[in-house]
Amino acid sequence: MGSYKIALLIEYDGTGFSGYQLQGEGRTVQGELEGALKKLSGAAVRVYAASRTDAGVHACGQVVSFWIREELAPTVVVRGLNHFVAEDIAVRGACVIDGDFDVRRRAVSRTYRYVITRAATRSPLRERFSLHVRESLDVPAMRSAVRLLQGMHDFASFATSLEDGEPTVRTVYEARIVEIGDDTVVISMCANAFLRHQVRNTVGQLLRVGLGKCSVDRFVELMSRPCKGAAGPAAPSHGLSLMQVRYQPALPFAA
Amino acid sequence: MGSYKIALLIEYDGTGFSGYQLQGEGRTVQGELEGALKKLSGAAVRVYAASRTDAGVHACGQVVSFWIREELAPTVVVRGLNHFVAEDIAVRGACVIDGDFDVRRRAVSRTYRYVITRAATRSPLRERFSLHVRESLDVPAMRSAVRLLQGMHDFASFATSLEDGEPTVRTVYEARIVEIGDDTVVISMCANAFLRHQVRNTVGQLLRVGLGKCSVDRFVELMSRPCKGAAGPAAPSHGLSLMQVRYQPALPFAA
Repeated sequence: MGSYKIALLIEYDGTGFSGYQLQGEGRTVQGELEGALKKLSGAAVRVYAASRTDAGVHACGQVVSFWIREELAPTVVVRGLNHFVAEDIAVRGACVIDGDFDVRRRAVSRTYRYVITRAATRSPLRERFSLHVRESLDVPAMRSAVRLLQGMHDFASFATSLEDGEPTVRTVYEARIVEIGDDTVVISMCANAFLRHQVRNTVGQLLRVGLGKCSVDRFVELMSRPCKGAAGPAAPSHGLSLMQVRYQPALPFAA
Repeated sequence: MGSYKIALLIEYDGTGFSGYQLQGEGRTVQGELEGALKKLSGAAVRVYAASRTDAGVHACGQVVSFWIREELAPTVVVRGLNHFVAEDIAVRGACVIDGDFDVRRRAVSRTYRYVITRAATRSPLRERFSLHVRESLDVPAMRSAVRLLQGMHDFASFATSLEDGEPTVRTVYEARIVEIGDDTVVISMCANAFLRHQVRNTVGQLLRVGLGKCSVDRFVELMSRPCKGAAGPAAPSHGLSLMQVRYQPALPFAA
């Protein structure tokens, strides 16, 4: 009996996780999935993700892959894993992929969303998945800044740590701000790939623009004169969600 | 130094509460508020609610009242309580009310919202505040039924338990269904007052209509021939939120 490679579309509430990637201590999405796969298949299975989300970051469109015995059909894997994983994680679909298909390298784009709730007091119904800001925000100024992100740029200013010689040019396909009602601000960013902490550092800098602590001119400077780690500080992780990882052609996930 | 009566606008995530009202065991919203008030004022304070929500039901517009020493200004009460209460509850505003103002009896209407997420698989990012339904729903049929609720009717069929001689006529000012995207169905109901479990029994019956298990004709019959407890079963509490309690004139809450 042979093995084949499967990709999963997964969703998780990042609140209870020390991030995606397996590490010495703390509960991780990878650890949860590998534990469930062990129960389902009886074998130790290593799971790879398209995007390694940080501690506290949520996802509704994460993609992961692993090898598993062919006798376990994708729909069986979906149902079996949803039985074994904890409540804060769910498998939304599965499909068979080629053995040399790398879900991280083959991704053509990632889309992240950051939600901000503006309110005079805390909001227990919303603050699990959004950042609470008491001050009013200059959204038109934030919008002027966010537009500058679109296109191919050196985003070194927005990276927290870089490996030696790591390229810092990325292409942002879309970056925008949408207001919902008078108390919610949603920042969306879609790029071919992101540097470490790039989205949260960008949101942190945009918040400084919205709060009047950083001018749009200074934001232009961060973009035009790349300087590692100049932007930020990073916005808290609980407002951030990985919405979608795109492939060309799209992966045929089915539940 | 005298005492005065204060009304609070509060919000809570009902997940961790055994309902609003203090009882023998289990954590309650009332218990949490009274514990925080004791810390703030040093005295035992009894808190009354406009609407006693069930275990697991959320609120973003609950109104409560209590007597407290006049030296504690409303804004001090807001800040003080938000310091002492747990993360899953927040005070959004406060105002001084007349000593004979009863927040329950003087309320002219209550608005509840029930959220349903339709998806083939679970959704950890949404199921904390919405009911997950795998099947497709006949929303036009549900909408035909929901319209019948509007107006003054005997809602005995939708009550779970009634006290002896308790009147069962209520006036529903608005009942409607809104679809958001292709996977979210929101049912809103506003009435002068609701019978015990009325909203959840109504949603449970509407779900049966949506799933094809109850005809709109049968729904008409439940309305026109009141029969205690005939509707339901009650939809799970975690999809339900108390959105607003209205007064005429509105209470001048401030944070």
